[in-house]
Amino acid sequence: MARHPAGELDDADFQVVEAPRPAPADGQVLIRHLYLSLDPFIRPMMDPVRSYVPHLNPGDLMPGFGVGQVVQSRNPALPEGTHVSGRFGWQEYIVADPAALRVIDPSLAPITTAVGILGMPGATAHYGLLELGKPKPGETVVVSAATGAVGSVVGQIAKLRGCRVIGIAGGPAKCDHAVQELGFDACLDYRAAGIEERFSALTPGYVDVLFENVGGPLMDMVLRRLNAHARVVLCGAISQYDGPTSGIGVPAFEFVRQRATMTGFIISEHMAHWPGAFEELARWIREGKIRYRESIADGLRNAPAAFKGLLTGKNFGKQLVRVARENG
Amino acid sequence: MARHPAGELDDADFQVVEAPRPAPADGQVLIRHLYLSLDPFIRPMMDPVRSYVPHLNPGDLMPGFGVGQVVQSRNPALPEGTHVSGRFGWQEYIVADPAALRVIDPSLAPITTAVGILGMPGATAHYGLLELGKPKPGETVVVSAATGAVGSVVGQIAKLRGCRVIGIAGGPAKCDHAVQELGFDACLDYRAAGIEERFSALTPGYVDVLFENVGGPLMDMVLRRLNAHARVVLCGAISQYDGPTSGIGVPAFEFVRQRATMTGFIISEHMAHWPGAFEELARWIREGKIRYRESIADGLRNAPAAFKGLLTGKNFGKQLVRVARENG
Repeated sequence: MARHPAGELDDADFQVVEAPRPAPADGQVLIRHLYLSLDPFIRPMMDPVRSYVPHLNPGDLMPGFGVGQVVQSRNPALPEGTHVSGRFGWQEYIVADPAALRVIDPSLAPITTAVGILGMPGATAHYGLLELGKPKPGETVVVSAATGAVGSVVGQIAKLRGCRVIGIAGGPAKCDHAVQELGFDACLDYRAAGIEERFSALTPGYVDVLFENVGGPLMDMVLRRLNAHARVVLCGAISQYDGPTSGIGVPAFEFVRQRATMTGFIISEHMAHWPGAFEELARWIREGKIRYRESIADGLRNAPAAFKGLLTGKNFGKQLVRVARENG
Repeated sequence: MARHPAGELDDADFQVVEAPRPAPADGQVLIRHLYLSLDPFIRPMMDPVRSYVPHLNPGDLMPGFGVGQVVQSRNPALPEGTHVSGRFGWQEYIVADPAALRVIDPSLAPITTAVGILGMPGATAHYGLLELGKPKPGETVVVSAATGAVGSVVGQIAKLRGCRVIGIAGGPAKCDHAVQELGFDACLDYRAAGIEERFSALTPGYVDVLFENVGGPLMDMVLRRLNAHARVVLCGAISQYDGPTSGIGVPAFEFVRQRATMTGFIISEHMAHWPGAFEELARWIREGKIRYRESIADGLRNAPAAFKGLLTGKNFGKQLVRVARENG
């Protein structure tokens, strides 16, 4: 990161830096980065505000989860060729201690899933929906950014739990995908006209669970239709990351009227939940009950543009950057 | 209620209706109303919006908790002279079934406490702070409407739990009372200048629990200083009851940044909590650990003015209306 962004991301917010390939110390490994994950939560880390981690400063490496392969090992536990995942950042080679890595078995699932449905986004969806949203059969669950890496998993789990699922996404292609491929009951195209009326018509019994990834007026629209004892799971607010941010457009008393709860969370504080979530998600994938979709940009130099696209809804499914070809 | 209020309460929103004294059927009792409780939550019930109870319609009896005395009994379980509390509404005489009444022992505490600290407001403070706010020793607890029927109890319980307590109240008299009589660590006079700066100075370690009774910009000020894993207990939003209401002035993502929870509740959904709360509160009163203060208006005809005063912060402590003198 070259500088703190002033609102929407600009090419000049990033800078490519060439540096010698690092060398692993005894016990460490050198990893060649194959797939970098682009996740919306990285954007707010670029702003100098108080948050759950120290914000980035100009000159810092852009952070991010990644999947790679050990190309030089000074640790017998991780021989060369081993696939690993970790917080690699936007760089081609990483030196790491094994404790900071998760070993990936490429025979179980494509390695990209280690930063997608079987990685942070999948754990986020599983934990947030089940532990905080607590959906019950027959309840209405609304999920925004419905075809994204997190939202698509949230909606499919909610369907498996017997809920009525309404997605919110931008454009007919994503909405068709949510209904036809992901099995949502309905998907609201927020770019089409009359969204408030269409949403009201879709929620005659109001909303029991909102899994929120977007924030702003779309979130307010759902908050105005909370059911009694609704649970709002605040995962992200992608519409507000480029600022200027606005407040929640619903009076506080509405949460009293509906005895509603709103909870913000970050999944890195709930690591104990990850293994069980991945086990269940992997089983659902094997059984064909959950699907996922990826968008892959090519090369680290295209990461800023792909990241910008992710923040403005141009991606479709989990956004990755191919940093290097596995056998290239 | 003569009509739905158009914003701030007007005398013409109320109408005095004379009617014959009702007669109890077999098994019922006739109660003479002695003290009517005025509670802010009644105000939003006057607006025609979807809520936890059906809203009032023009011509409906103004609702409210009250304390009275049985003056005619057709039930041996409740002889004449028995003191009882219940949802009496703004009227002088009430016919009721014993199941809808709570018997009050006037030898244990003044009967007015049955609609105050040993009634709905006390139960609200006890449940909301302990079950939802979950304060831990050393944490910073902020309570708005700090000298009111609920806020004063919240702050004192928080002190008993070893918390640092900061009240927010209007004017030096209330703030002095909060610190000197109720034992709060500090009280912020929201009518004095520079409140944001003074609040920041008072919360160098940020805010762990906010017990919110007021809403609006004062609430937003506190939300901007939430600590990690803060709990916001939404009890009321008295500043917004006369409308027009505004949204929450803090972006949704701030709740993610601080992994904060906000929960709205109404105490009538948690009746199982009441007896234990009253037992503990009564003990604390006997032990001199908790104090309370009352404002008493005289006569039902003054109820609208006293209610308006309550909504604009003119009261001091628990607001009651003396409907009749006990031996009058």
